[in-house]
Amino acid sequence: MSSMRILLVGAGGVGAAFAAIAARRDFFETIVVADHVLASAERAAAVDERYAAARVDASDAGSVAALCREHAITHVMNAVDPRFVMSIFTGAGEAGAHYLDMAMSLSRPHPEAPYEKTGVKLGDEQFAVAGDWESAGRLALVGIGVEPGLSDVLARYAADHLFSEIDELGVRDGANLTVQGYDFAPSFSIWTTIEECLNPPVIWEDGAWRTTAPFSEPEVFDFPEGIGPVECVNVEHEEVLLMPRWIETRRATFKYGLGNEFIEVLKTLHKLGLDRTDPVRVTGGEVSPRDVVAAVLPNPAELGPLMSGKTCAGVWVTGRGKDGEPRSTYLYHVVDNAWSMQEYGHQCVVWQTAVNPVVALELLATGVWTGAGVLGPEAFDAVPFLDLLTDYGSPWGIKEM
Amino acid sequence: MSSMRILLVGAGGVGAAFAAIAARRDFFETIVVADHVLASAERAAAVDERYAAARVDASDAGSVAALCREHAITHVMNAVDPRFVMSIFTGAGEAGAHYLDMAMSLSRPHPEAPYEKTGVKLGDEQFAVAGDWESAGRLALVGIGVEPGLSDVLARYAADHLFSEIDELGVRDGANLTVQGYDFAPSFSIWTTIEECLNPPVIWEDGAWRTTAPFSEPEVFDFPEGIGPVECVNVEHEEVLLMPRWIETRRATFKYGLGNEFIEVLKTLHKLGLDRTDPVRVTGGEVSPRDVVAAVLPNPAELGPLMSGKTCAGVWVTGRGKDGEPRSTYLYHVVDNAWSMQEYGHQCVVWQTAVNPVVALELLATGVWTGAGVLGPEAFDAVPFLDLLTDYGSPWGIKEM
Repeated sequence: MSSMRILLVGAGGVGAAFAAIAARRDFFETIVVADHVLASAERAAAVDERYAAARVDASDAGSVAALCREHAITHVMNAVDPRFVMSIFTGAGEAGAHYLDMAMSLSRPHPEAPYEKTGVKLGDEQFAVAGDWESAGRLALVGIGVEPGLSDVLARYAADHLFSEIDELGVRDGANLTVQGYDFAPSFSIWTTIEECLNPPVIWEDGAWRTTAPFSEPEVFDFPEGIGPVECVNVEHEEVLLMPRWIETRRATFKYGLGNEFIEVLKTLHKLGLDRTDPVRVTGGEVSPRDVVAAVLPNPAELGPLMSGKTCAGVWVTGRGKDGEPRSTYLYHVVDNAWSMQEYGHQCVVWQTAVNPVVALELLATGVWTGAGVLGPEAFDAVPFLDLLTDYGSPWGIKEM
Repeated sequence: MSSMRILLVGAGGVGAAFAAIAARRDFFETIVVADHVLASAERAAAVDERYAAARVDASDAGSVAALCREHAITHVMNAVDPRFVMSIFTGAGEAGAHYLDMAMSLSRPHPEAPYEKTGVKLGDEQFAVAGDWESAGRLALVGIGVEPGLSDVLARYAADHLFSEIDELGVRDGANLTVQGYDFAPSFSIWTTIEECLNPPVIWEDGAWRTTAPFSEPEVFDFPEGIGPVECVNVEHEEVLLMPRWIETRRATFKYGLGNEFIEVLKTLHKLGLDRTDPVRVTGGEVSPRDVVAAVLPNPAELGPLMSGKTCAGVWVTGRGKDGEPRSTYLYHVVDNAWSMQEYGHQCVVWQTAVNPVVALELLATGVWTGAGVLGPEAFDAVPFLDLLTDYGSPWGIKEM
């Protein structure tokens, strides 16, 4: 039995799925499930007798640090919206705990040329204190969900085992999910989706990061295992900021298979200003328009029984193979909603996000992965991760393009 | 000097324009401008020394009646959102005052066949008590803005003076307005626009009302005076409920020149549930999503200086002329924003709405129009109205189609 004691911050869709997946493993001693709604934490914690529930204010580093000290936490697992990254990251650091998240600190666009130059980039605020974490011997493993996360692991695998030279690491995310009874029901947090889709997408090219316009460079990508062709567009995503730090590549991109309807909805929300997060005053209170958009839509975590279809995450790698010949390969991971619902009772998108940090924590608990500082998933050996993921019942695939 | 004492409920865009237009006329003794925000009422009342300002809760009939009694009001002018029609109408009745509005009591769709059959129709709640108003000798002149209002007057004019037999009274509303610096800036209350555009459109045909689907029967209508062709679709509107009560016609319709972009925005708001008026709970309060949509958009009343173009309201009448020959005529009224801004400092859409009830009140004050009960504009002689409107500096036009 390891002495790993985990604080899981957030008992939403991904947090609850994390709790359910980890419940089948024995690499840790306890998980304290914390949420700003105690009842949500208690519900997620009820799946395992090793778990406890607590209330936390994720926006307050002091609240996070206090919980860490109270429960002798060794690892803080952040499973809430990225707007809380810095408070949880800081709180974990103050309490001397290791830290993991599935999205990095938020970006701010360049004030004059938002669609050409980067401003504050995703993760910049975390990388700024990487030296402190490294010298303290503590690990912040950032971006260890599915995307970022598994996509970065797959990129590392391709670089180590399939390619001698990489031209582009192109993350491609697509699905063929439908939700019975709903005209429009996003399968993931709309708050996060608005954030990543309306920010200027970032691209790594020839040794530097630059930005482009939202929804730029549309491309139809043919996803495997029956999902088929989906229109994908550039979206701001952590992989583009992470992969070039550890993997040599001429170019890194992220394209999301939003589909035309979703793109039009996002454009309309932006046109009207409903993507805004600063509060407006109306009868009944002072509220953030984006919160109201989230409130009128169904809760993605509760849609599982009505969903059908598969979701796919992966990285399309182009360059030269180990034999020096041109190679174009898509390394991917598909989850069928019917499978994740039957096996775990959690819908496929949140399950696919949550499984990867459980695998990573198991590798850290068993000493297979070790490190200090602020590190992305591609800073570690991909093979044991992919083997353990397969052992969890969820294999990955390769498709030559 | 007449003894007419007006309570103007609402100092938004239309209310403020009403106050400015009436300030140039001498047919009344006083106008008490009332709003739930006293400062708005005071600002609108500052244009004339005959005016006073007051605070009112338009949702409370008792508050309206009390103000009427306090100021010995003879006529209540309703210039707020149609959701307040019944409380203001009832309050005026309780206080023994006459009543005018520019939109009628709200509809409720048929529970089983919303896009085929009518449920509760626009104005039904007002017409239900028409007998009480008539026997008390009091007038409720309903729907006396521009549409409904001037469009109904023009229909009555056509029936009396141009046609021997009418096949269709087709109200057509269109504009070529642009707002400098805004991607999307409706020139009229978005709350009302959502209400009328997303409710099932109502059609009068062969002696009965029926409904159809939102945005049905798209048609390109060529508007006069340089506005040109605009795509128009069926929209729920009061004229269709009013005109057939006093004018014989086989068919009555209302089509609004929304344009494709606006239609897509409205469809998206509906798809997401952001048109909802029942409150949702979010951090900061419990709010109506539709109120939040209105709050993030610019205030249409304040857009005048940035607007350019013209707005057109009118009725397209088809049937047989006085000579028995087939006739197809568009009777219309166009306001150029540059003109209304220069003359009155109010943008053309709210000005065009507000001028008509001022004209109607002048006809009532001078005894040219008289009546009791719940009556639409088409229940009165059109000629003095159109002459007085022209006298106000805003002539109407006729175009043979």
